[in-house]
Amino acid sequence: MSGGEFDFIERFFRPLAGEGARGLRDDAAVLALAEGRELVLSTDTLVEAVHFLPGDPAETVSQKLLRVSLSDCAAMGAVPRGYLLNVSRPSGFDDQWFASFSMGLAQDQAQYGVTLLGGDTTGTRGPLVLSLTILGEVEKGAAIGRIGARCGDAVWVTGTIGDAALGLQALLDNLPDPDGFLAGRYRLPRPRVGFPLARFASAAMDISDGLVQDAGHIASENGLCLEIEAQAVPRSPQALAAGERWQSLCLTGGDDYELLFTASPDCEVRIMEAAAETGIPVTRIGTVREGRGVVVRDPSGKAMTLDRKGWQHF
Amino acid sequence: MSGGEFDFIERFFRPLAGEGARGLRDDAAVLALAEGRELVLSTDTLVEAVHFLPGDPAETVSQKLLRVSLSDCAAMGAVPRGYLLNVSRPSGFDDQWFASFSMGLAQDQAQYGVTLLGGDTTGTRGPLVLSLTILGEVEKGAAIGRIGARCGDAVWVTGTIGDAALGLQALLDNLPDPDGFLAGRYRLPRPRVGFPLARFASAAMDISDGLVQDAGHIASENGLCLEIEAQAVPRSPQALAAGERWQSLCLTGGDDYELLFTASPDCEVRIMEAAAETGIPVTRIGTVREGRGVVVRDPSGKAMTLDRKGWQHF
Repeated sequence: MSGGEFDFIERFFRPLAGEGARGLRDDAAVLALAEGRELVLSTDTLVEAVHFLPGDPAETVSQKLLRVSLSDCAAMGAVPRGYLLNVSRPSGFDDQWFASFSMGLAQDQAQYGVTLLGGDTTGTRGPLVLSLTILGEVEKGAAIGRIGARCGDAVWVTGTIGDAALGLQALLDNLPDPDGFLAGRYRLPRPRVGFPLARFASAAMDISDGLVQDAGHIASENGLCLEIEAQAVPRSPQALAAGERWQSLCLTGGDDYELLFTASPDCEVRIMEAAAETGIPVTRIGTVREGRGVVVRDPSGKAMTLDRKGWQHF
Repeated sequence: MSGGEFDFIERFFRPLAGEGARGLRDDAAVLALAEGRELVLSTDTLVEAVHFLPGDPAETVSQKLLRVSLSDCAAMGAVPRGYLLNVSRPSGFDDQWFASFSMGLAQDQAQYGVTLLGGDTTGTRGPLVLSLTILGEVEKGAAIGRIGARCGDAVWVTGTIGDAALGLQALLDNLPDPDGFLAGRYRLPRPRVGFPLARFASAAMDISDGLVQDAGHIASENGLCLEIEAQAVPRSPQALAAGERWQSLCLTGGDDYELLFTASPDCEVRIMEAAAETGIPVTRIGTVREGRGVVVRDPSGKAMTLDRKGWQHF
């Protein structure tokens, strides 16, 4: 590690380090779990010009990076504890950029109750590449995955669906967005940290690649069909104001970072209590049936044909 | 996640997934620790053209990536459990390359007793960027860090020092390397997994940036001086055959991935027992003294002046 790298870490990352990080001075971080708990781990990479633009505000880039992983953690029903960060830094990103990057992380650390545990920084001649690994904890055996949905389970989502996809269209000037709400939803996920999925969910994931495509993952992992009523899928007032021609994009567009979960119909009261406790709105949007794949029904009960299934990574 | 990304993961990474990875099908991996144990975490990034060359054999790139982290884990006295992998893949690295990459990991997984827990793959227009996060475990409170060295402690290293730095010179045709031993030491670290540092070490780290520079980290973290006897620093027969003019490079060159640790003089028997048990050679190279920094003494007791302190990252 050179003087330059030390100084870079000292200025921008040491202030983010928390318990277990050993001041970022050791070869590794150390994390203890309370008895009866187990660890949940997820990692994500953002690449400049693929997942964000060089001109995007640095603090939203860092917050998006952290929040995408927090969302994965929330989807497993886990409480986030801390994170590791890998930065491959081209010379074009200066100290001012990283000061904002670090400030964004500091704000989100306070909001979501996590701290930096460790990381690695390297130079690169290519684009800025950022990887973040989140560590969360959950009661032993209580992690919720994509497998576990049963025939007859209700299908639920948190929040509203499609805002981020419309936000991207607004940023491309294809759609008005007078209050900037839609663009904001695209720019910065709002991970559903704290939603107590473990109390009732039979299967869960976060919606990152579009509701229909992600529902398809739960369907295929369980060898069942997820039947979704298009009219039941919650849309924000702003998304509704955009008009019905955008409905299909709301169902298939990416970047929602809401939770999609299945639960026995008996759990409705518990789910509503969880929503009231956490202030996170939930909506029942369909049912798990025998069959394969995802069927989206219009109000007449007819299966809808959708243009695209979701976001393609590469 | 697109069909292409699914297929990429299915072919090259699913076969590496182990317990807790949930088949790489969930938003996160889950890892349980036995009671009384805690987690040790370390992460490293390798960037094409910075840390490896596009023409390097893919299986040694992946093994180097894993072994560098295994070495960090070993330096904390921890037993490795599993790892997460982030790949930012440019189009120039084809499936054949990743087949070898994956094969290298499979071999090392068997050798070191770890499995893949999860990861993320993205496209990039820049160089290949690889990040690996290792998870290990250690008895609660038993992790060894850089802090803890005491005045009067002996300074020890495992293995031989300087082979990798000479190996790079051999690859640059500055040095003969008839049996390829030195180049092999440069290409592929041999992490000292299983060396029971927790039984005796007061402070430890792995030597990645050169013995003198890394000894300097232990010195500064403890506000003490590490006095090293140059003649005591173990060199391989091949390094000795290169001649005395390479001694300084052996002391300051990087990529050894041997362990550097301090221990009370009382611990010598225990250290020798550990060496015998694990087959990992150890050598006492010096003493912790009052003062600051690192002093390397020649056989006459004179402090040596060394050209460079170690490898500079950026």
